[in-house]
Amino acid sequence: MAKLILFPVPIGAEDPDTSLPPYNREVLNTCHIFIVENIRTARRNLKRMGYTHPIDDVTFLELNEHTSPLDIGHYLDPIAQGHDIGLMSEAGIPCVADPGNLITDMAQQSGIDILPLVGPSSILLALMASGFNGQNFAFNGYPPIDPQGRLSLIRTLEQRIHRDNQTQIFIEAPYRNDKLLHFLASHLLPDTRICVACDLTLPTQYIRTRHARQWLTAPPQLHKHPTIFLLYK
Amino acid sequence: MAKLILFPVPIGAEDPDTSLPPYNREVLNTCHIFIVENIRTARRNLKRMGYTHPIDDVTFLELNEHTSPLDIGHYLDPIAQGHDIGLMSEAGIPCVADPGNLITDMAQQSGIDILPLVGPSSILLALMASGFNGQNFAFNGYPPIDPQGRLSLIRTLEQRIHRDNQTQIFIEAPYRNDKLLHFLASHLLPDTRICVACDLTLPTQYIRTRHARQWLTAPPQLHKHPTIFLLYK
Repeated sequence: MAKLILFPVPIGAEDPDTSLPPYNREVLNTCHIFIVENIRTARRNLKRMGYTHPIDDVTFLELNEHTSPLDIGHYLDPIAQGHDIGLMSEAGIPCVADPGNLITDMAQQSGIDILPLVGPSSILLALMASGFNGQNFAFNGYPPIDPQGRLSLIRTLEQRIHRDNQTQIFIEAPYRNDKLLHFLASHLLPDTRICVACDLTLPTQYIRTRHARQWLTAPPQLHKHPTIFLLYK
Repeated sequence: MAKLILFPVPIGAEDPDTSLPPYNREVLNTCHIFIVENIRTARRNLKRMGYTHPIDDVTFLELNEHTSPLDIGHYLDPIAQGHDIGLMSEAGIPCVADPGNLITDMAQQSGIDILPLVGPSSILLALMASGFNGQNFAFNGYPPIDPQGRLSLIRTLEQRIHRDNQTQIFIEAPYRNDKLLHFLASHLLPDTRICVACDLTLPTQYIRTRHARQWLTAPPQLHKHPTIFLLYK
């Protein structure tokens, strides 16, 4: 039975051998149709990950903000003809913090088998190393940009930290990282702790947990470095 | 600088090549002190993962409900003498749904570097394949056993699903899986959907998403099979 296969890709410039199991490459080479966000980076990622099939024989189906829902409705048709389809993200694992779940949702509704493969998730790597509660945690995506919405979200999440013992995780557009850290350090309760996890899987990796106000002194330079922010008590 | 290294292990009986990057084995063989939940399974897991160092030279430090906090306070001492320490879970990635964060918390407070390695998380594999929102999700651990507490938790989570668009994830002791599925299918709003993800990474893997009430008809047999439950609208 043909299926939808979820292929993680490396998070950054790291050697794929640090973040992908050997089995993924084996499965990758049996697959010749891929749903991707951007064809250029997908070609490059396939090559990096050891794809040996001639790339000109590969069918790429683009899934991004320019794709018409009408087209997407047909993306899984080849599965009925016995062809496996691969879904790849731009970085990390697909369907987490990216629009891939449009496709998995459609597959689930059609009763199509889905095979998720193991790969790097900066969210989980950060959580593992934060020292925070890993038995109860939430990933909240991007915080609102306007200060009022941002403050109101932070108040809600701080309640969940203290009442439910739930670690709160989010990300920010990398050029706004420094601003977000300053905002968090200034507005969280002083005994709330912040973990900053930056450049995961890279040699410059930095993962540090401190109390909110401590981050106001000599903060790290996070500008344009992919960073995960975690909050806990 | 010596550091604390977080080593994932396979989730179940799968070949480690399906769930661990080659780099992990390389790092594993440089490490001769391990903090583990159970020494017997840790020895078995080291062997499976291709550990070649003589196992009798390895120091194991046990971390479980019998360990005294006084002992734990000294577990990271070898790092000051220049020895890396590995932290392994019983299955899957450490510090997520296990007590490993006692150790990472202590490391963070002492300014010790932590290196989290990539590996299989049944929570993330389930989320990827569920079709549910991966841009906002929460893992809630085990639900309470008493029906009243269980119902009250489910009502809270259902609010977060519909108001915050947040996918809700939990696990159950495997011998209570069938009972939990029946409870969820009966008590959730009819338009709430449940994804059942069972035996992840194994040939018997089963990942299906349906509306709550549909699970009352011909439910799968989950008894003693490791299963992740996910809820969304």
